[in-house]
Amino acid sequence: MSDTKAMLVMGAGDATGGAVAKRFAREGYVACVARRHAEKLEPLVQDIESAGGQARAFGCDARQEDQVRDLIETIERDIGPLEAVVFNIGANVRFPLLETTERVYRKVWEMAALAGFLTGREAARAMLPRGRGTIIFTGATASLRGRAGFAAFAGAKFALRALAQSMARELGPQGIHVAHPVIDGAIDTAFIRDNFPEMYQRKERDGILEPDHIAEIYWQIHGQPRDCWVHEMDLRPWLETF
Amino acid sequence: MSDTKAMLVMGAGDATGGAVAKRFAREGYVACVARRHAEKLEPLVQDIESAGGQARAFGCDARQEDQVRDLIETIERDIGPLEAVVFNIGANVRFPLLETTERVYRKVWEMAALAGFLTGREAARAMLPRGRGTIIFTGATASLRGRAGFAAFAGAKFALRALAQSMARELGPQGIHVAHPVIDGAIDTAFIRDNFPEMYQRKERDGILEPDHIAEIYWQIHGQPRDCWVHEMDLRPWLETF
Amino acid sequence: MSDTKAMLVMGAGDATGGAVAKRFAREGYVACVARRHAEKLEPLVQDIESAGGQARAFGCDARQEDQVRDLIETIERDIGPLEAVVFNIGANVRFPLLETTERVYRKVWEMAALAGFLTGREAARAMLPRGRGTIIFTGATASLRGRAGFAAFAGAKFALRALAQSMARELGPQGIHVAHPVIDGAIDTAFIRDNFPEMYQRKERDGILEPDHIAEIYWQIHGQPRDCWVHEMDLRPWLETF
Amino acid sequence: MSDTKAMLVMGAGDATGGAVAKRFAREGYVACVARRHAEKLEPLVQDIESAGGQARAFGCDARQEDQVRDLIETIERDIGPLEAVVFNIGANVRFPLLETTERVYRKVWEMAALAGFLTGREAARAMLPRGRGTIIFTGATASLRGRAGFAAFAGAKFALRALAQSMARELGPQGIHVAHPVIDGAIDTAFIRDNFPEMYQRKERDGILEPDHIAEIYWQIHGQPRDCWVHEMDLRPWLETF
Repeated sequence: MSDTKAMLVMGAGDATGGAVAKRFAREGYVACVARRHAEKLEPLVQDIESAGGQARAFGCDARQEDQVRDLIETIERDIGPLEAVVFNIGANVRFPLLETTERVYRKVWEMAALAGFLTGREAARAMLPRGRGTIIFTGATASLRGRAGFAAFAGAKFALRALAQSMARELGPQGIHVAHPVIDGAIDTAFIRDNFPEMYQRKERDGILEPDHIAEIYWQIHGQPRDCWVHEMDLRPWLETF
Repeated sequence: MSDTKAMLVMGAGDATGGAVAKRFAREGYVACVARRHAEKLEPLVQDIESAGGQARAFGCDARQEDQVRDLIETIERDIGPLEAVVFNIGANVRFPLLETTERVYRKVWEMAALAGFLTGREAARAMLPRGRGTIIFTGATASLRGRAGFAAFAGAKFALRALAQSMARELGPQGIHVAHPVIDGAIDTAFIRDNFPEMYQRKERDGILEPDHIAEIYWQIHGQPRDCWVHEMDLRPWLETF
Repeated sequence: MSDTKAMLVMGAGDATGGAVAKRFAREGYVACVARRHAEKLEPLVQDIESAGGQARAFGCDARQEDQVRDLIETIERDIGPLEAVVFNIGANVRFPLLETTERVYRKVWEMAALAGFLTGREAARAMLPRGRGTIIFTGATASLRGRAGFAAFAGAKFALRALAQSMARELGPQGIHVAHPVIDGAIDTAFIRDNFPEMYQRKERDGILEPDHIAEIYWQIHGQPRDCWVHEMDLRPWLETF
Repeated sequence: MSDTKAMLVMGAGDATGGAVAKRFAREGYVACVARRHAEKLEPLVQDIESAGGQARAFGCDARQEDQVRDLIETIERDIGPLEAVVFNIGANVRFPLLETTERVYRKVWEMAALAGFLTGREAARAMLPRGRGTIIFTGATASLRGRAGFAAFAGAKFALRALAQSMARELGPQGIHVAHPVIDGAIDTAFIRDNFPEMYQRKERDGILEPDHIAEIYWQIHGQPRDCWVHEMDLRPWLETF
């Protein structure tokens, strides 16, 4: 087991998380995929195994400190050293300010920022003694600017960006590569297909981000030699206005 | 009572909040000052009254939705329309990532971001029917960039900035002026004097921000005609590197 | 003459430059106003003088190093110390990339960036021995982001912003206050009235920036004590989307 | 000749430009390398040819509109369609403001901004009829912030960034991928080795960017499918503070 390399996708519920897990599994990593209800991850695990890769599904509420710590300790002890951790939990909601409840504001932050903090901190705790590892936080348009209706979502994504910057500056010189790709556009997911059919029509013209293409970039980030690390990059379809 | 104008400083615990309250009181506003323990506000109220102004102290835990709502409803009902609301609660802490507890990360966010959201939302609710009013959120260096040790504080201040941007874009066209001055430097407070004596020595050379000067700028922001509103501005002493 | 204070507006050709000159003249400054053809400045000088102020018109091609140097030396020698210098030359053009000629690209930069550099450098040369003074560069939306059709204009305005930042960081600790207000919206000028009548209709609803209001802010910037200096601030009408 | 793909590095004088040319040549592109004096490019051309690639050296003063146009027309006519154009001319100088001459300020802009505009515009002219192509502008730390001593260099790099943004927004929806990687750190060049020996010692610890690693990223950018394009990314060594 000495050569086993593990990676973790926290928030492997959507297309992007799954694609990232598959990409790393293709290269021999044991893809550990986590979301709140592990049973929903079975199709993904089977996909990876059918393709000859290794995967493990974990149930984890990433807002719970104990669960995050246990998850990462379990992987490190039972599977192998975590070489890459990808935090991919979003919580894209939009409400006019006066209709944004305290409950929504708090929950969105817990999912998209607090969970990122717990995941990033525990990932760092595991990686620092080895002096290497990659931690990627998935950003969004709302990471860079607030907009009408986005007090809660932009608040959480801004906080996640602050985390990524603070960790990069603290951990970079200790060998940990922290990156914050910003996905600025709709991703090809069931959610977009079902809820925004007009937007989804852009897919024919390559107007929606393919999860596999995002995954390829995450893989490239992980492979960057330490003299040449990216911290932030924006990714969008050619048709997207910005 | 028809001509009474009220203003509120949420987080009037430090020098800046107090100075802002005094500045508005000088112009005839009833300065409503709030912090967790109202009794600590007595000296400030007396100061304002000795100078011929009007002030009212309120105990309010700004992290509690009910308390914020009650406070603003009480002011609107008993004192007068809120023409300006200043959110001035900070929570400047610094911990290495691995020593940042979940409790600290959450508490800093609750004080500096959640409380800002509740204050801003309830202020907007009061002001929108009148189609006018100023809401100012006090920012800091950590609002603009994360740094080693600042995962919690920068996370909260980034979130507050996202709130300010989202509110400005949603409420500006409805007549509400939302501003986010960024204080980039040490302010002349007892905290700095007692804990950072070396930094405090810069005061002799005007190297520390005077609360009265910040208050003057807040007053200027409130006075801007609506064709010429500032949203964000950075403020620092001449000696400060940036 | 020992108490005479001079100020200079380079690019006093439009409404903003004129309003700034008037505002300072009202406070007793000798308003030195410069543009390429001095004779066009006569109405402005008369306005200021009718109101009891002092003004002087100068012809100066601000792209010409000798002319800028001579102008500032002349003012310092014949009128009084320059306490404030405002660089206000714009060059707002829009062309599709392929139709942007080398001549346009160069000319826009010479007007909006090179002239700013020459003005700022010579202003600093005069002010540094006194260890005080204010230099304000007028920015625009295009100072912050490039857009289709704006390769030339945004290029020049970005360069001017780089100048303002570099000067602020170098000269601030030497007592010179360098500021970069960013005007994000249409200003009430004859140009807008004649060429963009639809946009101009917003004036009735305070949807266009009044030059006098911008001038007030420039005056406030100049008055900031050195422990509390703004460097950058964005200014826009309440109706403006951003 | 129908399958021949050409690429151009404008400013192939240093290590980065050469490494990028080699990387593309390895994939079968005819690497067209240009700098003012073509004869200095002979070693690079021989390197590429020894490795089995194809290269062509061109003398071109990129500040001269005619020369840039001729160069690109020549490549398109005689070699093959330009699929990628990399603008890599820097002009890193540092002078205190008062010692920055008009000549230096202008020359730095001509080299780093005007030349980029001419190169980018002519590249776009060639690529637009095909609806595809990649244009990469090399950025630097000074592209993002001005600093004491950097009025000229930051001014030029800011202008280049404005160009990249304006082109990306105008040309992206027409199929042209415009990217602006920002190199934030010392690159392993003879210039750094000879002039900054202390900085160069970081090389042993991977503290200096390897040109080959930058070249790999440029190659990855060119390979991105059009649903997933990066526009800006920052690259730095793990040890670099930022």
